[in-house]
Amino acid sequence: MTSELRTALDPRSIAVIGASENPNKIGGRPLLYLARFGFRGPVYPINPKRAEVQGLKTFACLGDLPDTPDLAIIAIPGDAAIEALEECGDAGVKIAVLMTSGFGESDPEHGKAQESRMAERARARGMRIVGPNSQGLANFGTGAIASFSTMFIEVEPADGPVGIVSQSGAMSVVPYGLLRRRGIGVRHSHATGNDADVTVCELAIAVAEDPAVKLLLLYLESIPDPHHLAEAARIAHERDLPIIVLKSGRTTAGQAAARSHTGALANEDRLVDAFLEQHGIWRAKDTTDFVEAAELYLKGWKPSGRRLVAISNSGATCVLAADAASMAGMSLAPLSEQTQGRLREILPSFAAVGNPVDITAALLTNSRLFGEILPVIAKDPSADAFLVGVPVAGQGYDVEAFARDTAAFADSTGKPLVVVAPQPPVADRFKARGLPVFAGEGEAVRSLHQFIAHGELAARAKARPPVQPGAPTRPEQTQARMLNEAESLALIGEAGVPVISHRLCRAAPEAVRFFEKLGGPAAVKGCSGDVAHKTELGLVHLGIVDTKGIRQAYEQCRRALEENGLSFDGVIVAAMARGRREMLIGAHRDPIFGPVVVVGDGGKYVEAMPDVRVLLAPFGAEDVRRALHTLRIAPVLGGVRGEPPLDVDAYCDAAVAVGRLMSAPGSAIATLDINPMLLGAQGQGCMAVDAVVFTT
Amino acid sequence: MTSELRTALDPRSIAVIGASENPNKIGGRPLLYLARFGFRGPVYPINPKRAEVQGLKTFACLGDLPDTPDLAIIAIPGDAAIEALEECGDAGVKIAVLMTSGFGESDPEHGKAQESRMAERARARGMRIVGPNSQGLANFGTGAIASFSTMFIEVEPADGPVGIVSQSGAMSVVPYGLLRRRGIGVRHSHATGNDADVTVCELAIAVAEDPAVKLLLLYLESIPDPHHLAEAARIAHERDLPIIVLKSGRTTAGQAAARSHTGALANEDRLVDAFLEQHGIWRAKDTTDFVEAAELYLKGWKPSGRRLVAISNSGATCVLAADAASMAGMSLAPLSEQTQGRLREILPSFAAVGNPVDITAALLTNSRLFGEILPVIAKDPSADAFLVGVPVAGQGYDVEAFARDTAAFADSTGKPLVVVAPQPPVADRFKARGLPVFAGEGEAVRSLHQFIAHGELAARAKARPPVQPGAPTRPEQTQARMLNEAESLALIGEAGVPVISHRLCRAAPEAVRFFEKLGGPAAVKGCSGDVAHKTELGLVHLGIVDTKGIRQAYEQCRRALEENGLSFDGVIVAAMARGRREMLIGAHRDPIFGPVVVVGDGGKYVEAMPDVRVLLAPFGAEDVRRALHTLRIAPVLGGVRGEPPLDVDAYCDAAVAVGRLMSAPGSAIATLDINPMLLGAQGQGCMAVDAVVFTT
Repeated sequence: MTSELRTALDPRSIAVIGASENPNKIGGRPLLYLARFGFRGPVYPINPKRAEVQGLKTFACLGDLPDTPDLAIIAIPGDAAIEALEECGDAGVKIAVLMTSGFGESDPEHGKAQESRMAERARARGMRIVGPNSQGLANFGTGAIASFSTMFIEVEPADGPVGIVSQSGAMSVVPYGLLRRRGIGVRHSHATGNDADVTVCELAIAVAEDPAVKLLLLYLESIPDPHHLAEAARIAHERDLPIIVLKSGRTTAGQAAARSHTGALANEDRLVDAFLEQHGIWRAKDTTDFVEAAELYLKGWKPSGRRLVAISNSGATCVLAADAASMAGMSLAPLSEQTQGRLREILPSFAAVGNPVDITAALLTNSRLFGEILPVIAKDPSADAFLVGVPVAGQGYDVEAFARDTAAFADSTGKPLVVVAPQPPVADRFKARGLPVFAGEGEAVRSLHQFIAHGELAARAKARPPVQPGAPTRPEQTQARMLNEAESLALIGEAGVPVISHRLCRAAPEAVRFFEKLGGPAAVKGCSGDVAHKTELGLVHLGIVDTKGIRQAYEQCRRALEENGLSFDGVIVAAMARGRREMLIGAHRDPIFGPVVVVGDGGKYVEAMPDVRVLLAPFGAEDVRRALHTLRIAPVLGGVRGEPPLDVDAYCDAAVAVGRLMSAPGSAIATLDINPMLLGAQGQGCMAVDAVVFTT
Repeated sequence: MTSELRTALDPRSIAVIGASENPNKIGGRPLLYLARFGFRGPVYPINPKRAEVQGLKTFACLGDLPDTPDLAIIAIPGDAAIEALEECGDAGVKIAVLMTSGFGESDPEHGKAQESRMAERARARGMRIVGPNSQGLANFGTGAIASFSTMFIEVEPADGPVGIVSQSGAMSVVPYGLLRRRGIGVRHSHATGNDADVTVCELAIAVAEDPAVKLLLLYLESIPDPHHLAEAARIAHERDLPIIVLKSGRTTAGQAAARSHTGALANEDRLVDAFLEQHGIWRAKDTTDFVEAAELYLKGWKPSGRRLVAISNSGATCVLAADAASMAGMSLAPLSEQTQGRLREILPSFAAVGNPVDITAALLTNSRLFGEILPVIAKDPSADAFLVGVPVAGQGYDVEAFARDTAAFADSTGKPLVVVAPQPPVADRFKARGLPVFAGEGEAVRSLHQFIAHGELAARAKARPPVQPGAPTRPEQTQARMLNEAESLALIGEAGVPVISHRLCRAAPEAVRFFEKLGGPAAVKGCSGDVAHKTELGLVHLGIVDTKGIRQAYEQCRRALEENGLSFDGVIVAAMARGRREMLIGAHRDPIFGPVVVVGDGGKYVEAMPDVRVLLAPFGAEDVRRALHTLRIAPVLGGVRGEPPLDVDAYCDAAVAVGRLMSAPGSAIATLDINPMLLGAQGQGCMAVDAVVFTT
């Protein structure tokens, strides 16, 4: 853990530059909070115009303080803030929280440049900056509330197991508010602002190391530093700490809005997905989704599978839960014959005892039915998780007994359980027993699925050997050089990708000799480092069966290139490719995430109707296989209409080889396209038929 | 409106058979409710064992009543309920609400048969049955609460603009509870149970005719009678009454659960989607989604487009709203230069004045900013709808002014507006002003989109001429006969589908003559009413260029069929088909929804990777075009990679012709498959190359 950032969360002393008497001003709120929420160190308000603010003695300037504060809050506008920052750096302050707005978010050029300069100068003095445009940091474990958020007045804080780190001020406290209202304690609620120096992801490392944190929520509008997030994830895996990310700017419209918010650069959204998946981080869809499943993570449950058993007094809840489970990717295994038999003895004849279990309206007549069936179901080994639905109850029902019996059932099974209870008075009884309650079957099942699927995701990430990601493109690496086809094929061939049998021939007799050696129909392709799309220039001649044809093709290629003033590097004579499906493997270098490999279906409509997935290199064959399983063509890869399954193993190995090639230290490959990558039937391998590589 | 069902909603008198002193029993609740919620007609409790229940004089049997009740509630178990039903029918009761369980839902064979008999006998006596297994009917407009739901004790009713009709008891009152808690009044909350006689959809017609109802919610586990739902939709369109359906049993697991709930037959889910869309009905995804947008429908807004303007004091809300809009299919048009200029004068320099408008944390310093910018934005014509987000406010903010200004803004624009306010105290201020408030950007934008898109959907349905759907398959129509290819092509050709130039030739010389007439390469295909898949038997010979080839092909076809003991009906000689894409048109007859036409992409993997849509016949070319737009191959149909756009118009006309053919009165076509349906470039038409028709 970076010592500077530990200080940000737990400073010994805090100065407030621009301290205000008014607790509703930016410079007044932190003083209120530091007093109210139990910060134990000295607090130094700085305000040359007043002797005292909020009952504390003020100081005219930093130099007047009795000692150097660990952390300084800068709550003054414009250029004065920059001056204050300089003074802090000179004085030996460790962390400056710069709340001032009007930098990169309002002026992407000049403002961003100012930010970079501030960050550089601070670092040179050993100081780190949070902000500018930061709402501030709040650690309810230490009482170090260097924040001006209104939320901590509105919703009483309680130290607890959740950590929230956010670029945005609002999104550092909206989840706080939603969680607190569910009775969940929040320890950290930090808003970093424009991230000129300390980023959300770097701060997340420090929060991930706090042993009191059991669930980490990150709101990001941009990920400029994936290595920090990878490090946070690594620490989280060691501690079995789940991380949920809400990354906005998914769409072009959202990215445009994000630019005017923090001046952040956009990430390619599918790479964000790939990165988070690789690191076992769950991605939330929106604000509600961000906190919806939080309670499930805090129960200490260790999920072991996806088989749901649903139990309700309403048939509709049973049907809706079954639909929701199926749509979320959970199954409803039937209960054992023995269980069903026991349930039949307890429930009326018109009840359903398979799975879902429908107690029916008979529960109105006999409230004990609930408590009687749960122990029977608890003994059945076929469930991994439970949904208990009580859509309607009240007078005539012993709701307290339902809640008590459900809590005892959850304790006895130790398996994840969600309750659906849309009526607040009913919900409250279950909540009082510590059970996660939802208003609808959809939310309940999706949360359960998230909790279980996130566990699977994190386990996969944890099992993966730690990776050293390859280098991203540097901005100066824009001038790339194209290799000709022979060089491209040689390069990928050396890397371990199977390549069609071929030879670059620089004279017609050589082409004829190689054709004769091949002993079958051949392809002849003009080879030039100047041409990426050969067909349009008539440089591709397929299915040639005699030496005359080879000579003609050679001549045509030579002439076509020379007439167009393009370099003629020879012709490639190749065996005619045979396979069952044309796929592709592509690769490029993302400026942020580094080497990216694209796997998927080939063919002429790959741009118009893409059926591809991206992987961040390096990765293993299992990652490729998992990606292929989500393709539209997955059934075809498995074999349909009496066709054999295709050689997915060979394809996965080839993709892994490309990933290794891209992430090798010093790799100069900018982009790489193998298309077609021809797949044979299982056991017959795959083969690169054409390739284009650009190097820097 | 069926008079019997008007009586169900507004009976003059009500008898309760099995009346109970205990208001928590099924036979006690209706008495409680009839007394409490203002039913004005006479109520007759029937209980031979007591002189009085709940303060009302009881009667020993139906015969003892002073007059015949309009409606009888039957709240006794087992065979006694069937006897009571008989007595009601004999006495001239108009509506029986049968609450008794244990019929079709517990015994799909015997129970269902019992239900049918009960319904038949009742109808013969002029009585209609709601149920069995019904929780009952509740009309808070008339006070006729023939229901035993617990919910009306738990949540105080208030007459209002929403009607709910549900098969399930729970789902008749869960939305009631959710809406009431938002302060929305509910007039109707009916649960029909097993629908042995009166179905949800038939009852929905009666509710749709109630002029006080402004939003109609239907929960369905099965649609056995789409004509009733179509009629309800027709009446709703006349009144501009929106209908939202939550149809469960979407998945196999859900359908299995639904069978044990009400014994209902499963619908094919994509046909449910197609049917609801055709009739302008919005389909909700789950319980929460069912009521999420309700408030928007009750404001009297007339949406005119999908361009959203988002306004917030939080940049994150702006970004999340922009993402949500983009994902929902709404756009964020920039505000005019003039508007932006005015906003720049009001807001600080670091605020964003395009769209979204980010007021920033400056709102903490100056609460008036909100009220100052809204009138400026109101004048801008570029918005169709608004999102106002206040993720964090409280002390230091004039929230009351925000709510007042927002309400005035909404009034002045008359355009749909949603508020995002996750803090309940903030939300309450906006709600008090009559504005729809949501906890997150996602829900808010999705609700707005639903309201607008539902309006578009309803307008399309309303504009469509009323259709008489074709007949569904009758169960006895299972023995279908296959037409041979020549007959099949002739049939679709007569119906107006363009068909490849061809001739059925019964002798080789005839085949040769037609080949010569064609004057180019030809296809020869063996024709037999016994063979659907010709290729496997070697019955397809393509690209024949001379008369010798024609004769050979003729002989091969004849021999192949005869050797396999299959009828030889001749050979089809056809021009070689030319086109740009192989699509398909299929059709079949659904047992519930009648004629179904399948449109979409063809090719060998149509089962493994379907890219098709279903349409319920009859339909227009515009419906086909809309369906094609949602296909994966839509870009290819529009022309990509320098290819011309394809002749979608011709394809649409062909699909409409197939729809007409299927829905023609007396049509005997069971199934129809045109594959390939070859599409040329725009203006070059399309052409059926092969077809298989089964008739009954």
